[in-house]
Amino acid sequence: MKPIKKRLLTPGPTMVPERVLEALSRPTLYHRSPEFKRIFLETRELLKRVLRTEGEVLILTSSGTGAMEAAVSNLFNPGDSAVVVVGGKFGQRWQELCLTYGVEPVVIEVEWGRAVKVEEVKRALEENPGVKGVLVQICETSTGTIHPVREIGELLKNYPEALLIADGITAYGVYDIPTDEWGIDVAITGSQKALMTPPGLAVISLNGRAQERLEQVEERAYYFNLKKELKQQRKGQTAYTTATNLVVALNEALKMIEEEGLGEVARRHALLAEATREGIKALGLELFSESPANGVTAVRVPEGIDGQEIVKIAREEFGVTIAGGQEHLKGKIFRLSHMGYVDIFDVLTGLEVAEFALKKLGYDSFKLGSSVGAAMEVFSQKG
Amino acid sequence: MKPIKKRLLTPGPTMVPERVLEALSRPTLYHRSPEFKRIFLETRELLKRVLRTEGEVLILTSSGTGAMEAAVSNLFNPGDSAVVVVGGKFGQRWQELCLTYGVEPVVIEVEWGRAVKVEEVKRALEENPGVKGVLVQICETSTGTIHPVREIGELLKNYPEALLIADGITAYGVYDIPTDEWGIDVAITGSQKALMTPPGLAVISLNGRAQERLEQVEERAYYFNLKKELKQQRKGQTAYTTATNLVVALNEALKMIEEEGLGEVARRHALLAEATREGIKALGLELFSESPANGVTAVRVPEGIDGQEIVKIAREEFGVTIAGGQEHLKGKIFRLSHMGYVDIFDVLTGLEVAEFALKKLGYDSFKLGSSVGAAMEVFSQKG
Repeated sequence: MKPIKKRLLTPGPTMVPERVLEALSRPTLYHRSPEFKRIFLETRELLKRVLRTEGEVLILTSSGTGAMEAAVSNLFNPGDSAVVVVGGKFGQRWQELCLTYGVEPVVIEVEWGRAVKVEEVKRALEENPGVKGVLVQICETSTGTIHPVREIGELLKNYPEALLIADGITAYGVYDIPTDEWGIDVAITGSQKALMTPPGLAVISLNGRAQERLEQVEERAYYFNLKKELKQQRKGQTAYTTATNLVVALNEALKMIEEEGLGEVARRHALLAEATREGIKALGLELFSESPANGVTAVRVPEGIDGQEIVKIAREEFGVTIAGGQEHLKGKIFRLSHMGYVDIFDVLTGLEVAEFALKKLGYDSFKLGSSVGAAMEVFSQKG
Repeated sequence: MKPIKKRLLTPGPTMVPERVLEALSRPTLYHRSPEFKRIFLETRELLKRVLRTEGEVLILTSSGTGAMEAAVSNLFNPGDSAVVVVGGKFGQRWQELCLTYGVEPVVIEVEWGRAVKVEEVKRALEENPGVKGVLVQICETSTGTIHPVREIGELLKNYPEALLIADGITAYGVYDIPTDEWGIDVAITGSQKALMTPPGLAVISLNGRAQERLEQVEERAYYFNLKKELKQQRKGQTAYTTATNLVVALNEALKMIEEEGLGEVARRHALLAEATREGIKALGLELFSESPANGVTAVRVPEGIDGQEIVKIAREEFGVTIAGGQEHLKGKIFRLSHMGYVDIFDVLTGLEVAEFALKKLGYDSFKLGSSVGAAMEVFSQKG
């Protein structure tokens, strides 16, 4: 049977609520109009509440990578050094950005699927005095791994020169993260993950320390110029034309988060992640990450099966888009997202399509429905 | 956890595809414009193909009941008699309509959940010579029962004075029904079931015999005047303003059916229904109908449990709308729909929410996920 529906269960873009799609399709506003300014300023306020920061929050018209680039190009001078946690594709991206902008990366290589240890960060800082920042992912999306950013923040209290720059692209809106309390100086996220909005907007927060750093750094960014943006966005303006419809959509999505309550949103993600993990284990499969995140679950593909085939069958035969592995993990893992506009039935759908695909590929050591039952059990007891 | 999504798994209205919603929201057309006329005529042609009739197909702006009323008021004179199969709420509706229009109903009372026997119809016809029609449901939605309309059509070849008027509201687009071949003179359906369009449009077909009858009957309908409609709709017009956006949406939905192929659509419904039935049986529950339909499955609620509570929990705690029983079946059955824009994952969601609700209400003689596994097994073997 040919699939008749399409379902999006990837770790970004994620499913967009009908209410947000409706907002997206409202008539386009002029980006310099009072009406848009009001919405823009309100959206920045709503973001501050999701990020739980008293710092400034800027909205950039780009993917999340744009905000990562902005952090590196605006907060470091050429020749500065930064500790970079590389435990996956997005850690690599930090490293590449450093090299692009002449920032010397002090790389902590972490085996993919493992979380960095705070002691590793400590050692890197001790061995490299004068480091100007620590670049890390809160959740490394490529492996579904959560890094101990709170503890890194604690550690960095002893290193006042080093900014903690955290890519929270698949963490904000999944977890309830008190950015300021954790000592995150610069937090980054994107519209297309737990913020339940289509791709196209990035978010970057700057606390007082980060804003000071901005003043000390030689200006070299043009489009991603945070000083210019800061000046404009405080007034409800942007330096360049922003994606107005996406901002209106994001505004709506943030209101949905506020209505559900950030704590409740985090609790939902924790529960859906636990249900997914128990489902996977019930199939006799292993989680790829030793420190699994609540936004996306990476699953080790059983011996002799090509993980890309699982993804292909899910998409082509069942209309469900899940994610495979990236780089050297291609074919070795598949990833089920439970991030954003997701409920228990979506999680069960993800498990079902994985079961169907695994059976088709000859992994037969389970009874159909086993993962579903295990996940339902979690939900039934704790939901 | 509060539900964050709403899912519609009732036997009408059913889920509307995004593509149809998009069509629905196109700018409203003037109902007398050439552009709309073209769409209207095309929609009538598409309906003829779904109904597989060479007769005329009329679109009425009303719920399906409007078309039922039109059939009774336009095709019978006061004092005429008609055999009416009453095996559920919609059979009762035929009976009520007859009484409203002075048509004497020769009622065949069928126990709810049972299909009428052709011999019962035969006997009624024999005992009541001069009967002008047989009014029946192809699928009696209230009990999820399919009646042997094909066989009734066969029988009626010997009764040339009796029109076969079949309410196919939850049958067309679920089954591939050759209306003409089965001898259905008048077929009725609605937009909000397997035709995957929001409520608001009814469809009625009239073959040559039915059109002749129209000429012989004293005109008494005003809004539901089929003679007037026939004249207008042949030209792409309607007697009164039609729901233009709904017609545009229905046009799109019918194209989707055509793209999938009516045979394939029917095969999908058969498979989804079988998966649902096997799922239900795996929970130790009984199907309510002895002749279960492919569009909706009625499930007998276990002793000591109030079926309305199942429906309530599904809606309030899980955001899933399923249907309960009607009339004396209230609380005794619940109904899972698998009609229209539905795939295997929707069917599994329906079973999951039933499992969750049953457990909550103390029906505990099954392991969570059992029905899902059984349904997946069906799909895995035959999908």
